[in-house]
Amino acid sequence: MDEPTTRKERYEHGRAVFDAVDGAAGAAHVDAIVDVSPELAHQISAWAYGEIYARPGLVARDRQLVTLGMLTALGGCEPQLEIHVNAALDAGLTPTEVVEALLQSAVYCGFPRALNATLVAKKVLAERGLLAVG
Amino acid sequence: MDEPTTRKERYEHGRAVFDAVDGAAGAAHVDAIVDVSPELAHQISAWAYGEIYARPGLVARDRQLVTLGMLTALGGCEPQLEIHVNAALDAGLTPTEVVEALLQSAVYCGFPRALNATLVAKKVLAERGLLAVG
Amino acid sequence: MDEPTTRKERYEHGRAVFDAVDGAAGAAHVDAIVDVSPELAHQISAWAYGEIYARPGLVARDRQLVTLGMLTALGGCEPQLEIHVNAALDAGLTPTEVVEALLQSAVYCGFPRALNATLVAKKVLAERGLLAVG
Amino acid sequence: MDEPTTRKERYEHGRAVFDAVDGAAGAAHVDAIVDVSPELAHQISAWAYGEIYARPGLVARDRQLVTLGMLTALGGCEPQLEIHVNAALDAGLTPTEVVEALLQSAVYCGFPRALNATLVAKKVLAERGLLAVG
Amino acid sequence: MDEPTTRKERYEHGRAVFDAVDGAAGAAHVDAIVDVSPELAHQISAWAYGEIYARPGLVARDRQLVTLGMLTALGGCEPQLEIHVNAALDAGLTPTEVVEALLQSAVYCGFPRALNATLVAKKVLAERGLLAVG
Amino acid sequence: MDEPTTRKERYEHGRAVFDAVDGAAGAAHVDAIVDVSPELAHQISAWAYGEIYARPGLVARDRQLVTLGMLTALGGCEPQLEIHVNAALDAGLTPTEVVEALLQSAVYCGFPRALNATLVAKKVLAERGLLAVG
Repeated sequence: MDEPTTRKERYEHGRAVFDAVDGAAGAAHVDAIVDVSPELAHQISAWAYGEIYARPGLVARDRQLVTLGMLTALGGCEPQLEIHVNAALDAGLTPTEVVEALLQSAVYCGFPRALNATLVAKKVLAERGLLAVG
Repeated sequence: MDEPTTRKERYEHGRAVFDAVDGAAGAAHVDAIVDVSPELAHQISAWAYGEIYARPGLVARDRQLVTLGMLTALGGCEPQLEIHVNAALDAGLTPTEVVEALLQSAVYCGFPRALNATLVAKKVLAERGLLAVG
Repeated sequence: MDEPTTRKERYEHGRAVFDAVDGAAGAAHVDAIVDVSPELAHQISAWAYGEIYARPGLVARDRQLVTLGMLTALGGCEPQLEIHVNAALDAGLTPTEVVEALLQSAVYCGFPRALNATLVAKKVLAERGLLAVG
Repeated sequence: MDEPTTRKERYEHGRAVFDAVDGAAGAAHVDAIVDVSPELAHQISAWAYGEIYARPGLVARDRQLVTLGMLTALGGCEPQLEIHVNAALDAGLTPTEVVEALLQSAVYCGFPRALNATLVAKKVLAERGLLAVG
Repeated sequence: MDEPTTRKERYEHGRAVFDAVDGAAGAAHVDAIVDVSPELAHQISAWAYGEIYARPGLVARDRQLVTLGMLTALGGCEPQLEIHVNAALDAGLTPTEVVEALLQSAVYCGFPRALNATLVAKKVLAERGLLAVG
Repeated sequence: MDEPTTRKERYEHGRAVFDAVDGAAGAAHVDAIVDVSPELAHQISAWAYGEIYARPGLVARDRQLVTLGMLTALGGCEPQLEIHVNAALDAGLTPTEVVEALLQSAVYCGFPRALNATLVAKKVLAERGLLAVG
């Protein structure tokens, strides 16, 4: 249950989770900082994905839902939001659910945050040929 | 489909949604401002609940999940977070799912926001006799 | 006093207020999301403008002043700030008043927020041939 | 026009502006930190009030209006908001205008920030016997 | 160099770092959530301290300095700020350096954040008999 | 000790500090707003640098360290962060210390803020031929 692991093994485990959740766009975003902060890149895979995302207790789809809420509320996280709108769709959230979650943010974060997040969703949905969400 | 409604009808509709979602604690929080800003109190029921929460496209449980993410990320929303941890449990999220969603916030918002939100969850879970979440 | 209205009538009323306050740039900003989130676009007109901006109790000019303060403090709202610097000037605030309000933000939000907002004001004032504000 | 002044003179000038704008409650708030950070206390009077508030270009009432917007949007500034709701009333904003400005924050900052700020306004208005604002 | 470790070993390593950096107050803050979110408590020690604080490249004193800046800017982190003002002093920052760092925040975050943080510093310095910092 | 100074003298003193700390990039950033808000430009030099940065009690290197923490936490301050990563290196912080300080922000502000700040550091380090920081 608590078998010893090496740092490299923990990275490889986390990277597999990361690749499964965020795909190529997530990988590209994090790989861009490997040369400047290899430890930050390491910890995103090894810790954020290997230790947190990999946990039971909240299914992948729900992790994306709460993440959309956090990234929208923080503001200034458009690059990360783009990755997670894609991850949300990959995890089984429908375009309507994503758009509706961002509409909900108008209640808690105000319209500017909702608008900026929705523009990111529009870009992603258009790229995936899913823009007509009614 | 688009039948005319009065302002009073829209309020009553929204208030029913509000009471169903947030219960007595939510009502007390909003009723406290009726004397100073009756319009703000009106719009929370009539608009936030009557127009947004009442929409199809995202089930009640999921609306609470994304809301927990937003309130945690914003910071300084402990009174609202307390209401929505209760609402999340009422909507069918398990204590484990709530606690896990707040743990996820450590990844996106950092540990102080995660800690402050988790202390609110502890208070609510204790009040409901649900503290042993493992 | 509380005559019944349809959703479509409330939208049209709000859209008229919206167009009067924010003009073509505001319209373009919101119309860009109609295809992805028609409800968000609807509610900006029907609710934010039709229900809040349309209220008595605070004149149009004053609504823009408090809005400039909020958008500057939030950060990451440069697209919305551009619309509202224009709206502020249209509502009768002078270039000097706008610039002075953004200077005031240095006291409460710090210099980075004040600088970023002032760069937006510079763009708008230059476009309107109003840059020499002394 | 640019007459030489001493640091002490600049403080005294700023302190007079500060006292005129924020009154006893503002003074108490800042005086509480004189022993730990005399320079911070000095600069609030000498700079924020002596250099910024004292400027022409935006009347006192308008400075309070934009300040209410900023403090509401920042969150976690309830002690400062209490002082500035008082300052806003002293500067000639009516209770209705203050309450309406905070209602406007629901559009831009979301309902939790609007609610928290309105609860501060309620406290101040009650203390001044002005709670019935309709 | 990359020897295998168990989860328990990583926790114990991190907890030792945590205790050395934050002392009894930090421990009490985190131990308060062990029953509601044992994983969050685990990760604060195992990851934040065991993996990040334990790294070379930035000495303990400097980690506290940058942390004071972050906690002040975030707002709403007064409980964490109290722990880290203590940790900063324990790591060798002088009271003057702490107070001066918080004064610097007025430039970047505005006076309300600087004031709220300085009030926390006052409490800590008073408790440690260090209030007269000149 | 408290010799009288003119506004122009205070500006010139502050501008010299500003130029010494932030160099040409900082000057360009602030000079860009001279035509729209000459007072904001004046106060950045005269006050932020002449009154705060010029103070004893915290050495230049440490002021940059706490500033990096604040700008990362605020979010949306990438232009200012670019200037201060340069200023941090000019003040004697090593590339490793800068990168490590931004890694530390993952703990307190979450990974999106850490990632966005690290991308700014990458740009600056690459421009200075310092990218290989290991």
